[in-house]
Amino acid sequence: MSDSIRISVDAMGGDKGPRAAMLGARLFWRERRNTTYIFHGRQAELEPLLEEFPDLKPISRVAHSDVVITMDDKPSQALRKGRGSSSMWAAIQSVKDGEADFAISGGNTGALMAMATFCLRPIEGISRPAIAAIWPTLRTDIIVLDVGATVGGDAKQLCDFSILGAALARALFDQELPTVGLLNVGTEEMKGHDEVKEAARILHAASGSGFIYHGFVEGDDIGKGTVDVVVTEGFAGNIALKTAEGTARQVGTYIRNALTADILSKLGALIAGQALQALRRKLDPRNINGGVFLGLNGVVIKSHGGTDEIGFKGALGLGYEMARNRVMDKIGEGMRKFPTLNAAPTAIPEAEAKPA
Amino acid sequence: MSDSIRISVDAMGGDKGPRAAMLGARLFWRERRNTTYIFHGRQAELEPLLEEFPDLKPISRVAHSDVVITMDDKPSQALRKGRGSSSMWAAIQSVKDGEADFAISGGNTGALMAMATFCLRPIEGISRPAIAAIWPTLRTDIIVLDVGATVGGDAKQLCDFSILGAALARALFDQELPTVGLLNVGTEEMKGHDEVKEAARILHAASGSGFIYHGFVEGDDIGKGTVDVVVTEGFAGNIALKTAEGTARQVGTYIRNALTADILSKLGALIAGQALQALRRKLDPRNINGGVFLGLNGVVIKSHGGTDEIGFKGALGLGYEMARNRVMDKIGEGMRKFPTLNAAPTAIPEAEAKPA
Repeated sequence: MSDSIRISVDAMGGDKGPRAAMLGARLFWRERRNTTYIFHGRQAELEPLLEEFPDLKPISRVAHSDVVITMDDKPSQALRKGRGSSSMWAAIQSVKDGEADFAISGGNTGALMAMATFCLRPIEGISRPAIAAIWPTLRTDIIVLDVGATVGGDAKQLCDFSILGAALARALFDQELPTVGLLNVGTEEMKGHDEVKEAARILHAASGSGFIYHGFVEGDDIGKGTVDVVVTEGFAGNIALKTAEGTARQVGTYIRNALTADILSKLGALIAGQALQALRRKLDPRNINGGVFLGLNGVVIKSHGGTDEIGFKGALGLGYEMARNRVMDKIGEGMRKFPTLNAAPTAIPEAEAKPA
Repeated sequence: MSDSIRISVDAMGGDKGPRAAMLGARLFWRERRNTTYIFHGRQAELEPLLEEFPDLKPISRVAHSDVVITMDDKPSQALRKGRGSSSMWAAIQSVKDGEADFAISGGNTGALMAMATFCLRPIEGISRPAIAAIWPTLRTDIIVLDVGATVGGDAKQLCDFSILGAALARALFDQELPTVGLLNVGTEEMKGHDEVKEAARILHAASGSGFIYHGFVEGDDIGKGTVDVVVTEGFAGNIALKTAEGTARQVGTYIRNALTADILSKLGALIAGQALQALRRKLDPRNINGGVFLGLNGVVIKSHGGTDEIGFKGALGLGYEMARNRVMDKIGEGMRKFPTLNAAPTAIPEAEAKPA
């Protein structure tokens, strides 16, 4: 990796089109001058658009792709129609070819995950990639994974996610020994299904080697920030993420309604204006935009399809920090440190596993 | 059932002790004069306490139990130690014996579920009980189940939960044909694990018989109030519930911090006082206290252990509405209407089940 961070953009992904991607890139470049951009997509559309961004132009190039993956394409369809020829594929291929330090797309999540997995391949020893979310909490930002790459997961996969999540915490938050919690329906030892209990035993034994295993955490521990990394399989993780988004939006609507209910509320809101502005920024989902694909041989960021340039800039920042702080190296270190990785889950004898 | 609603109270459950239960009962009785109470617990403690509530006394009696189940008792321990002899068991037994229309306890959820299942038994044809939550949304209150009675669930169980949830919606919200949605990680047909896809096929075929099957819903549909009943297995449901509670608390803290940040914010908050008071009430978890056990031969309400008399009163209201609106009869009707209940899931031929 050179001193500059080279970013590969699927400019055709995202509901707001290539302009939002370039606007976001310009916003981000103004903060991080050591970035360069490859915009993948239809040349006839992107070349004239880039002319409108004279500050971006010297540090950017357009790479032509014919095919655009749509939000309706199923992952298998997307692979058939867009492998090699789509802007989404080409954006990932640039990472594989060493031309870029990370790829970013606002396109169809399923298609992006399928292409990224097919093109970059899972890291040897990691059985499945995961999507990690950066989750704001009362304490600090934390990492929650998997939030929807795959449904279900055995103990080995939950342990893989712990290694990946801890490496991301080291890269993003500069924490030497992040705490890891397993999402469960209670914090008592006998709670939950077998996969999560088995994973708990392995992580307990591995605690200290790259992370501290905290134990089980419950849904409300996420917002409290009880641990740095919350590990779960993709079904529960996705439901937790979307339920939290829904609740935040619901409470946001309550606040808005309360502060516009009558003339006194409006006056009060006006006077408390600055504080409420700060609150609004805090609840703005654009500021926490970006899901991180972990477990592949390369960094891929999923920006929310519906976001604008502010959100796209946020997602670029995430990829930038991952690349700059060498998350891939940190994952490698984490895997080497983890004692029972290759032998898990059978390495822990049954007798040891039972509570005394 | 007589015209009055007879309530069986485990007065020893709940962290705040018997006084909170009696205070809550008095608050509730002032609104609903057609209620009577049996307080189960240590006579030496409850009799003098009841003297302090002269308005409750004529419509209440104390029933002595020696044993108190604690929050630390595991369900199996609780059954061993408290079967027959504990206030929790006795409160449920009163329902079984036809002395009370519903039982309520603020005690240990796992113990209460184990005792209720053991004492009342699941309704014939329903394989497992569920815990239903009443969830406030942007539209109206809705029902979410199972939020933690058991972990995992096959298609038959998810269909049972739909029948139970729809019956509760008919009882509480007076909706003739409530809409039912299956919680999933996407709304497309191919998403999710096999159990949820199989349940979707059965519910689709049964739609119209006691409920309208809406299709898959995602986590953020809960807060929107997209459907009247959200069905899921207890692991994902519990995580959704607790994550939403955590998020609501987190946003509540943000609001408080914003409105006390400086002198202007405080002034604004003072002026908008009434509207913010209403908002605070809306976010007060005591007003939506109470989990409902569904699928057993009798109504049991779990009040939150840590709640005070306001919360206990809320949970009493829930049981009252269930009893008054004959939820047990409505469950029976729902089961008779559901076409493939006893044959499910094998009644749906594979060929029919595949999308065209």
